[in-house]
Amino acid sequence: MIYADNAATTAVGRAALAAMLPCLISDYGNPSSLYAFGQRAKEKLEDARARVAACLNADPKEITFTSGGSEADNQAIRSAAALGAKKGKKHIISTAFEHHAVLHTLDALKEEGFEITLLDVHENGIVTAEEVAAAIRPETCLVTVMYANNEIGTVQPIAEIGAVCREKGVLFHTDAVQAAGHLHIDVQAQNIDMLSVSGHKFHGPKGVGFLYAKKGIRLRNVIYGGGQERGKRAGTENLPAIVGMAAALEDQLLHLDENNARLIRLRDRLIAGLAKIPHSILNGDPVKRLPSNVSFCFEAIEGESMLLLLDDKGICASSGSACTSGSLDPSHVIMAIGRPHEVAHGSLRLSLGEDITEEQVDTIIREVTEVVEYLRSMSPIWRAQSEGKMDYVLK
Amino acid sequence: MIYADNAATTAVGRAALAAMLPCLISDYGNPSSLYAFGQRAKEKLEDARARVAACLNADPKEITFTSGGSEADNQAIRSAAALGAKKGKKHIISTAFEHHAVLHTLDALKEEGFEITLLDVHENGIVTAEEVAAAIRPETCLVTVMYANNEIGTVQPIAEIGAVCREKGVLFHTDAVQAAGHLHIDVQAQNIDMLSVSGHKFHGPKGVGFLYAKKGIRLRNVIYGGGQERGKRAGTENLPAIVGMAAALEDQLLHLDENNARLIRLRDRLIAGLAKIPHSILNGDPVKRLPSNVSFCFEAIEGESMLLLLDDKGICASSGSACTSGSLDPSHVIMAIGRPHEVAHGSLRLSLGEDITEEQVDTIIREVTEVVEYLRSMSPIWRAQSEGKMDYVLK
Repeated sequence: MIYADNAATTAVGRAALAAMLPCLISDYGNPSSLYAFGQRAKEKLEDARARVAACLNADPKEITFTSGGSEADNQAIRSAAALGAKKGKKHIISTAFEHHAVLHTLDALKEEGFEITLLDVHENGIVTAEEVAAAIRPETCLVTVMYANNEIGTVQPIAEIGAVCREKGVLFHTDAVQAAGHLHIDVQAQNIDMLSVSGHKFHGPKGVGFLYAKKGIRLRNVIYGGGQERGKRAGTENLPAIVGMAAALEDQLLHLDENNARLIRLRDRLIAGLAKIPHSILNGDPVKRLPSNVSFCFEAIEGESMLLLLDDKGICASSGSACTSGSLDPSHVIMAIGRPHEVAHGSLRLSLGEDITEEQVDTIIREVTEVVEYLRSMSPIWRAQSEGKMDYVLK
Repeated sequence: MIYADNAATTAVGRAALAAMLPCLISDYGNPSSLYAFGQRAKEKLEDARARVAACLNADPKEITFTSGGSEADNQAIRSAAALGAKKGKKHIISTAFEHHAVLHTLDALKEEGFEITLLDVHENGIVTAEEVAAAIRPETCLVTVMYANNEIGTVQPIAEIGAVCREKGVLFHTDAVQAAGHLHIDVQAQNIDMLSVSGHKFHGPKGVGFLYAKKGIRLRNVIYGGGQERGKRAGTENLPAIVGMAAALEDQLLHLDENNARLIRLRDRLIAGLAKIPHSILNGDPVKRLPSNVSFCFEAIEGESMLLLLDDKGICASSGSACTSGSLDPSHVIMAIGRPHEVAHGSLRLSLGEDITEEQVDTIIREVTEVVEYLRSMSPIWRAQSEGKMDYVLK
């Protein structure tokens, strides 16, 4: 099996497992308990918090553990909205290709009277700091722009957007679910006020994430109850997952530059190989993208059929995000970069893991090429196009 | 170490671990992915849902996996409130000794214009179905009464309350975090509309739980985002924890009657032993309580000191709930059953695990007796009381 869907989820790594297993098997104490067995769990919890904070150049007090990236996104946006509403500021700026954890939270706020501006992300899948600056109004309470897109992998100019927001006094949140553990993040240097992370995207476990929120930002609970996480996130702390996430994040950063240099080389080899398929197009900026991400649209192809045929050949890939794979609509991300409807349906995302080999990349190129040819051979649209009776959409 | 704090959290059992490890180590696919590796995860997810549902006599479609009991409580109450508000029904009935996941959610709803009636739980820690019936008004949209109390272990007349609610057409939710896996639950026979469960209270993992909601009840999202859990709970499904919880719940029920018969015998031995300590009192009904729960108040004792001394002797116990152990206020549960302030501070909860032995119970009796004597020997209040200069609060 060639697992090329690391943007959907990753294998739990050895570093994470080694940290988790003792907590799962023997150190099961509740970190809120007073006895030594509970306090040992508490120490592990605070150690994990300090490690995670250090990875971002944040203060441990600025880290709130959550059940994942979606919860962190919800909490960040809800908190900023509550703070804004208090001051009569009910305008939020985001982009058209955010993850649904952001977009659907914004939809809910819209129903509560907030005004939402979704910035255009252009064909290259990148929003500019100037556009953010131009959209900010006196009543803007939040700018939320994802760090790296989950489908097309484009990396946004976070530091520049952060600087604009800081200058204008507007809170800046970034959904860094695809970026954390894959790119260097420095919340201070990049002027990030809030940032969401999910553990299972960088070889940590599922069911855990965290929200970084700069000191002084009052968080609003998404989950009410006990006094855990300074009263901002109720529920017994998921210690095995938290220590696993911390270990995975540290481990990723230890090898990041080396791994990324290798991944970029293999990513570009994959892009070059797939670009040879006629009437295909790379989605998103070729350079300002995650080292692991390759995203293409193929003319006259149904994404789902492509995935199933690739699966038969042992290749795990996706068309868009796993979170919406049940949907028949074309991806809102692919639509946001302006791909026509009929091309958006033929999208393919390959997200490489650090252990991918050159041989595997070449296998992917060969198999995707074959699958596209095969599917086109059965497509009446393709036949009409190749006989000159219909125009191609992609050159 | 004698771990007598199973109401705070439990060790992950062998059944749970055996189910979890393959998902953590090799079957890490995202259940929303289309390829076979993801679909295998999806099958495991749905299998876990069916198993959990069967344990409650529910339909799998009625189960929504969450990050734990607190999230399930929040979602149940928020959903019922949203449904009620639509019909102009903004009155909710609960009890004074619910878990904070319920009480704090109700506090938030109060600020949004809901009226909350908290029923008295009496000295025996039990609310009656008649009192629930009497409190229901035409504008009542929800009755939420916990199945078994987390501090004093009293078990509520759930089937009777369910029958009252069904008859009056009011939604009935129960926080069954302490009951699931410890008592037989049948949501149909007991007329339960919604029920919250947490995995780590019955030898499942932390960070996972579920909400049962009867068919036809429209859930409101607590976490917005991807389309997981039929669109009602966003975020990549935490498969390892979900299968671990399902395995643990099944395993508990397999041995439930046998374990409970034994636990009740040992619980009653422990109660009888501690009752010999002068000026002490059992909290909650002696019979209608969890087989694992022993809760006492001791006159002229500071609970926290007692816990630390017991810890020195290798006994893990708690004064109230772990979720609020940082607080200096006496437990709201102990206050709700009418213990005077000065006695409420001297509360001790011992929650037994299935592997507790008679020898360990006798050790607990001996050590608690010694610790209480020691602490009283240093208490000026106790001296005044024993010299007849002050009245005892407890007989």
